[in-house]
Amino acid sequence: RVYGGVMLQCVWCAEESLSGVSERRRGLAQEKMTENGVFSRDKVLTIDTMNPTVKNVEYAVRGPIVQRAIQIEKELREGVKKPFTEVIKANIGDAHAMGQQPITFFRQVLALCSYPELLNENMFPEDAKNRARRILQACGGGSVGAYSASQGIDCVRQDVARYIERRDGGVPCDPDNVYLTTGASDGIVTMLKLLVCGEGASRTGVMISIPQYPLYSAALAELGAVQVNYYLNEEKCWSMDLSELERSLAEARKHCNPKALCIINPGNPTGQVQSRQCIEDVIRFAAKERLFLMADEVYQDNVYAEGCQFHSFKKVLFELGPEYSDNVELASFHSTSKCYMGECGFRGGYMEVINMDPEVQAQLSKLVSVRLCPPVPGQALMDLVVNSPQPGEPSHTTFMKERTATLSLLAEKAKLTEQILNTVPGITCNPVQGAMYSFPNISLPEKSIKEAKALGQAPDMFYCMKLLEETGICLVPGSGFGQKDGTYHFRMTILPPTDKLKILLAKVKEFHQKFTQQYS
Amino acid sequence: RVYGGVMLQCVWCAEESLSGVSERRRGLAQEKMTENGVFSRDKVLTIDTMNPTVKNVEYAVRGPIVQRAIQIEKELREGVKKPFTEVIKANIGDAHAMGQQPITFFRQVLALCSYPELLNENMFPEDAKNRARRILQACGGGSVGAYSASQGIDCVRQDVARYIERRDGGVPCDPDNVYLTTGASDGIVTMLKLLVCGEGASRTGVMISIPQYPLYSAALAELGAVQVNYYLNEEKCWSMDLSELERSLAEARKHCNPKALCIINPGNPTGQVQSRQCIEDVIRFAAKERLFLMADEVYQDNVYAEGCQFHSFKKVLFELGPEYSDNVELASFHSTSKCYMGECGFRGGYMEVINMDPEVQAQLSKLVSVRLCPPVPGQALMDLVVNSPQPGEPSHTTFMKERTATLSLLAEKAKLTEQILNTVPGITCNPVQGAMYSFPNISLPEKSIKEAKALGQAPDMFYCMKLLEETGICLVPGSGFGQKDGTYHFRMTILPPTDKLKILLAKVKEFHQKFTQQYS
Repeated sequence: RVYGGVMLQCVWCAEESLSGVSERRRGLAQEKMTENGVFSRDKVLTIDTMNPTVKNVEYAVRGPIVQRAIQIEKELREGVKKPFTEVIKANIGDAHAMGQQPITFFRQVLALCSYPELLNENMFPEDAKNRARRILQACGGGSVGAYSASQGIDCVRQDVARYIERRDGGVPCDPDNVYLTTGASDGIVTMLKLLVCGEGASRTGVMISIPQYPLYSAALAELGAVQVNYYLNEEKCWSMDLSELERSLAEARKHCNPKALCIINPGNPTGQVQSRQCIEDVIRFAAKERLFLMADEVYQDNVYAEGCQFHSFKKVLFELGPEYSDNVELASFHSTSKCYMGECGFRGGYMEVINMDPEVQAQLSKLVSVRLCPPVPGQALMDLVVNSPQPGEPSHTTFMKERTATLSLLAEKAKLTEQILNTVPGITCNPVQGAMYSFPNISLPEKSIKEAKALGQAPDMFYCMKLLEETGICLVPGSGFGQKDGTYHFRMTILPPTDKLKILLAKVKEFHQKFTQQYS
Repeated sequence: RVYGGVMLQCVWCAEESLSGVSERRRGLAQEKMTENGVFSRDKVLTIDTMNPTVKNVEYAVRGPIVQRAIQIEKELREGVKKPFTEVIKANIGDAHAMGQQPITFFRQVLALCSYPELLNENMFPEDAKNRARRILQACGGGSVGAYSASQGIDCVRQDVARYIERRDGGVPCDPDNVYLTTGASDGIVTMLKLLVCGEGASRTGVMISIPQYPLYSAALAELGAVQVNYYLNEEKCWSMDLSELERSLAEARKHCNPKALCIINPGNPTGQVQSRQCIEDVIRFAAKERLFLMADEVYQDNVYAEGCQFHSFKKVLFELGPEYSDNVELASFHSTSKCYMGECGFRGGYMEVINMDPEVQAQLSKLVSVRLCPPVPGQALMDLVVNSPQPGEPSHTTFMKERTATLSLLAEKAKLTEQILNTVPGITCNPVQGAMYSFPNISLPEKSIKEAKALGQAPDMFYCMKLLEETGICLVPGSGFGQKDGTYHFRMTILPPTDKLKILLAKVKEFHQKFTQQYS
């Protein structure tokens, strides 16, 4: 068996240990060998016949470095010796996985909704029971196991609308413009799906910040749209520059049809909180240039830095007066996954659309109906977030205590991260004003850049991979989010428990110094 | 204000009562009136600039007739007089909404997972607690609020694999080939997304049964693929004919590149259970013609008719021997939404891929990572379905009692539906062998067909709309699922409680006779 033995092993090895059919399979494979020794698998669906847009999709937050981290964890369990005893993952904004505790009230209501028999027990506070009863009454057959309306449960959308009105100082919100979603990602992809069309020079362009959250680039790749980059200003704490927006748009108009502008505020991966002035500028720009605005505001409660405040795009839009509030099309997104809740697993979220063409909105409603409905437990959770215990209700004190404790701890860790990283020569870290991430600039020695390029790797991927192998720390290279040519970064979450975060930062510091020396 | 006053009202009226800005808005609109009185809204995103593939999407199960039903319910609540006092919805397979009770054990475990404090209480059986502990241990930070792996929680995928092995008499199942999904719909759309590509005559064609479940046509429209229809044989109880598959494929090859064949078994909307022979024929056909098989098996426990049995495509594939089991590419789908569970709201499901090209499977894994993970409560529920209480465990007796009661009741209602419908002159109903639907053939008088066409409506839509207005019964016209030209049907679920189902069937009978008379 000279022909292609290695190939066979490569393609099938993973399966040989798992099923008894590999011998037969190999027999079959031999029959299908072509004369020049190439193994012909004869599949219908191959890398060459599959959807090419899917191949263009990349998602760094769960990319190769995370795959390797999982592998290393397995090796550690199997007793393989490493220079560390555990992998610390700071690659993804997954608060509960990092030990953050859920809000008691939320989980009580969810348990009551799941198993309404518990409504007869004395162990739950009355406000939790009341919320559960209200949600259950709004469900078909009084069960969270029924489909909801595709747009989401009516009373939840009403609660969302009232929450938005309170948040935005009374700016009206119509529940008919609120769509509950499967996490914010679902809403963002749905909106992009509506926007994207055309071929060649009339293909839809969508402006996204660089660095960006790679859901955007992945969705645009899948939809075959043109990703139009505008760069955040790292020198000015990752703020948005009007001149950069103008440059980016002018450039894009030469080869596509830019229709939308996406903003993440507070920023992911960059952790900045946009000023009111900046948001105003962006809205005026969108109005002037006729761009549909998409505001990803899932970190709206994650604001830590003094002097910083969250301003919703909607509120600023309405404060600019009817010329804007009656015209600029805006979709904004929220989620149960971030803020003080961190309930990622429930995949809850909502989007609000403003000034959307009624015909398009009818199409949106139709489109969401195909997937039947967002997960009902996630809808219930979204309801609790926007309708949390009020002063006077039995759960209010505990709720506020838990909420404040979580947000204060995050604020501490944001500061700690920035401070320690800035003590490392060759690392420069902007203040983590909000969200859950720092995105420090790292100086990489020329020699390491050359070595990475020789390996066909992005230099910061090379750096992060080495960091993982030597210290067990899992970060995501800046190249997965986009960055100015010739600059290098990594994204790390501020979520690990304080003691682990300190270890992580100390190890990063040590590693960076060693790495710099090694490649100098 | 002569110009376009009606238009203004039409476009904005819904908003006038809801926000204070309508006056300003109208002012603005006036400024933008063009000379010929057409109202220029000047939106970025309009019906003309939006994604045209989205416009082609249709989803009858939640289409115009259901919108009208919801409206009528509202009118009833507001005291509008109707010839009926309630709307009976038999349009969607939503068991809990129709009063089916959830399985106690499942909901106990879900409550425990949501609020693990309950593990300290004596009120839950030990097996429920053990299941909850096992699921929580597999979650990041021991919380269902953490993201899971994108492919799904490891131990759940292992349980799914063991379930499939038991179900299929020991045919091996590799957990690495199992992907947990957000309901079956998500898995189906994801697979289609991988398969679809090409332009013009090389566009991917996907063969689907007619009648079909409109998720398929909707997803294909959205992806811009070619829908290739093959007709089920109504005369032979909606079975699949090999000759019809051959005809359909040959026809399709003239104008596209057919790559996949979708089967729903037990059938939706048609309620048939395919014979083992038929499945064998389909597999041989797919192998010969090099088609990727997609088997939608979400109703696998819903088999009622004597002599009928569920055969999974995978089992039959492996029984056909290595020539098939080593080669034919298959994706099969299951869900928590149907069978005896009916837990639609949780959006749980899985898909198994077999003989998938490893490179493509890597692309699949990457693609699912962009959406982060399926809802964790749905994953937990899927785990319980595939790892239900075993003999000897404290919850086993109750579980079996509940499961059997639900399935027996469905079997009774399947029979009842068929029997009563077949007593109506002009209605012919195949046996409801499985699933949750009957799809009877209805004879419509020529005069009614003409009247419908004059209104631009499908004749069975005209019929169902009249039925709704006159009796409050909400069914879905056959045209929403596809049917042979010149034949007419409706789909009705067998899910309403027996007493309501009897009322529904009596009303349909009465209506059909009246309708026939009226248009004769």
